[in-house]
Amino acid sequence: MYLELDGQGPRYAQLTRGLKQAILGGRINAHSRLPATRVLARDLDLSRNTVLAAYEQLAAEGFIEGRVGSGCYVAAIGAMQAPQPVAKAPARSGAARAPLSRRGERIRELWDRRIPGREHIGLRYNLQYGMPMTNPQLASAWRRELAHAAAHAQTDYPDPQGLLALRRQICDYLARRRGILAAPEDVLIVSGAQQAFTLAAELLLDEGDRVVLEDPHYQGERQIMQASGAEIVGCRVDENGIVTTDLPTQGRTKLALVTPSHQFPSGAVMSLARRMELLAWAASSGCWIIEDDYDGEFRYDARPLAALKSLDRDGRVLYFGTFSKVLFPSLRLGYIVLPPGLRDAFIGAKWLTDRGCPAIEQAALAKLMADGAFERHLRAAAKSLKARRATLLAALRKHAGGEVEVGDSSAGMHVVAWLTRLKLAQARQLVARAKERGLGLYPISPYFLKAPARPGLLLGFADLPAADLQAAMRILGECLREI
Amino acid sequence: MYLELDGQGPRYAQLTRGLKQAILGGRINAHSRLPATRVLARDLDLSRNTVLAAYEQLAAEGFIEGRVGSGCYVAAIGAMQAPQPVAKAPARSGAARAPLSRRGERIRELWDRRIPGREHIGLRYNLQYGMPMTNPQLASAWRRELAHAAAHAQTDYPDPQGLLALRRQICDYLARRRGILAAPEDVLIVSGAQQAFTLAAELLLDEGDRVVLEDPHYQGERQIMQASGAEIVGCRVDENGIVTTDLPTQGRTKLALVTPSHQFPSGAVMSLARRMELLAWAASSGCWIIEDDYDGEFRYDARPLAALKSLDRDGRVLYFGTFSKVLFPSLRLGYIVLPPGLRDAFIGAKWLTDRGCPAIEQAALAKLMADGAFERHLRAAAKSLKARRATLLAALRKHAGGEVEVGDSSAGMHVVAWLTRLKLAQARQLVARAKERGLGLYPISPYFLKAPARPGLLLGFADLPAADLQAAMRILGECLREI
Repeated sequence: MYLELDGQGPRYAQLTRGLKQAILGGRINAHSRLPATRVLARDLDLSRNTVLAAYEQLAAEGFIEGRVGSGCYVAAIGAMQAPQPVAKAPARSGAARAPLSRRGERIRELWDRRIPGREHIGLRYNLQYGMPMTNPQLASAWRRELAHAAAHAQTDYPDPQGLLALRRQICDYLARRRGILAAPEDVLIVSGAQQAFTLAAELLLDEGDRVVLEDPHYQGERQIMQASGAEIVGCRVDENGIVTTDLPTQGRTKLALVTPSHQFPSGAVMSLARRMELLAWAASSGCWIIEDDYDGEFRYDARPLAALKSLDRDGRVLYFGTFSKVLFPSLRLGYIVLPPGLRDAFIGAKWLTDRGCPAIEQAALAKLMADGAFERHLRAAAKSLKARRATLLAALRKHAGGEVEVGDSSAGMHVVAWLTRLKLAQARQLVARAKERGLGLYPISPYFLKAPARPGLLLGFADLPAADLQAAMRILGECLREI
Repeated sequence: MYLELDGQGPRYAQLTRGLKQAILGGRINAHSRLPATRVLARDLDLSRNTVLAAYEQLAAEGFIEGRVGSGCYVAAIGAMQAPQPVAKAPARSGAARAPLSRRGERIRELWDRRIPGREHIGLRYNLQYGMPMTNPQLASAWRRELAHAAAHAQTDYPDPQGLLALRRQICDYLARRRGILAAPEDVLIVSGAQQAFTLAAELLLDEGDRVVLEDPHYQGERQIMQASGAEIVGCRVDENGIVTTDLPTQGRTKLALVTPSHQFPSGAVMSLARRMELLAWAASSGCWIIEDDYDGEFRYDARPLAALKSLDRDGRVLYFGTFSKVLFPSLRLGYIVLPPGLRDAFIGAKWLTDRGCPAIEQAALAKLMADGAFERHLRAAAKSLKARRATLLAALRKHAGGEVEVGDSSAGMHVVAWLTRLKLAQARQLVARAKERGLGLYPISPYFLKAPARPGLLLGFADLPAADLQAAMRILGECLREI
């Protein structure tokens, strides 16, 4: 008997698979007798024990009958046992795409059309926003806390709402640094802000419901709203944040997503007047507001402003916090401060979706916050970011001063450079030319629903040392002059 | 001026909040002058620096105007500044529940009606299914791998599909132990089986679509199908697994959920004939099959049977694996082996939902598998489970032999004891009486869509030593005789 083994895993498992395929494919007929073990062993150059083990497995699974070692017969196993060629594995490339649910079709389309992440990752100078900051002190503190938590954290299913010790630390942190008074029962631990948006869309939106986004905005949040089939309305942003007079007043808006501390990506800080108008609009229209405070911690000319949530007297604001920016993205931890009317629903959704976040990383994070290592890291990060931002801006002025207008508000981990002379097509040329010279540039246009009047660049500076930022701006200036 | 501080966080932050509330509540009017810093410091018994810091914060946030230290005036901040009492924090208990999306309302209802987890957790003998196994060797290996991974794993956003090294290890494992030939690009790492069910429901089901569940079944999977608004059809299970002649043939079924290795919770192993019939039915009706292989690893009388997925020639089977049972539940890692036609959609959904699983735990798990520590743990766990199962069954026969019929198939981490004499109401009495004596018992009825004809108990034995299992069965026998 001829059988080709597939080479994966132990020999007996390969032989078992090979015999099964021969039986299912009809190459060995029902009721026929299998070769004696020593015959097959000789034919295939295997040890007799290997063949015995395979026969025993086939018997245990019901493929053969009789006593292994004396005489085994192939079982009759129904309609599937027909002489048809069996593919070794289903075809991979060009596999037909299966039809999906309405939501599934939208998700697959969003995946197909995604902006490739980290596209310039191999370049010498990569100004991508959201790259993690390097901090060796933090890395070693984190390693220590993880090892400690691995020895002490519970192994049972976690609390779906999140570890109480971590929720307490977050409340302390919010009261001290973000002006928010919250109790641990208002806080839900989630797998990053992305999951927070997902749960909100799931719980608050039916297909066709209206959602207001700032324009420009973070694409991740827009994609989730698109996946839920919502009607998306963009609202203009100026130097005081979202333009509240442009908020829709006709019909019902279910949800509005804002970044008051540091508008993403334009960089504006929402003024107090706009904050009050937004809250009044939400209260009167029955709309929920998501405050995405992705980098509200980093403010360089003054103390961080209190969060919008601290002004929320009507319980309309869901506050989203993430540790991706202040620690590192691969951690996948964030949290929501919930208004009372939504608490049960969000905890229930987290419980239903994935039963809660991993226990060890939550315990390690709670300890990092309790020990003070978290705030030490924040202070060090703010200091380093402030210096890098100053370097970037000085170098940008020096090398491209006449060509750019800077959108900046002394905050965050990026600045926007609006290109005052170039047209949109020329900006694409600029990105391509910079790439050839080892500089990764990111246009701002993908962050808009409605294309901006002029091109701009999103310059992320968090993880680049001063010399790299200066070199990057020099190249940017040279590329600009060539166009 | 009188102000009550809330006692949370540093004094300046408390004072800032108190002044904001006074301004927003209209107790301090727009355009009025704030007290001089030394006056307020004296009035409230605070240091002048504390008051200065609060005033600076208020100025930075736009609540007051003028120069701190000489004369500050309250800003006019629009319609919200009205004399109305401000609650210190929104009411917590009895907060009105906000209306939600259709899906949201279903989720909140499922959360309200959930079976409380771990209800007998304080009892001396707790036979709850799914409690993690204690293995000190595993715990120390895991601590070591986590600390190592924390020093070496990437900090950037993870691969949404999951760490390649981990997907490779899973493929090796599946080929060796579950008879499945898969490539790393077929595997998606998820946050436990619960998230796998969530993604499947999202991608494959529209409201009203039909789903087939085994009856009885795991409630977690049913709840997810209910949340998606699917029409749920239960299908009978006998000693050979799902009764394929009862599968619906009229109309379209989108999805069928099965546990072929060890039916949960009845304990049956699906026969080869039933497997082939199920696959033929799925192929002809265009239905997807989810194989939930939650404890297929643990088989005591023979080698584990190959998974249903190993017979899937038409690409209709989604194989779900979890590390909650073989390692520990608070890890929150599992995986899906996807048919080619669904690969993009599932990776896209994971990416959209939460950007991927935490990197460090994936790297640690990949290393645990590569080092062989994972398989050593599996062998140790299987040995310990086999001994505990034998102890449980012997003690059950001895103390309650005449009262129970055992549903068991030499596999898994639980057995079912059907109560041959008691009525359903008497079984509730039994559970209450056992609880008084320190024994946690779990009826099987919540796992059924259609109430079973006779009562039964789900006896989880994974984490109880032999002496405890014997004591537990003795108490069970005594309680039975008292009813």
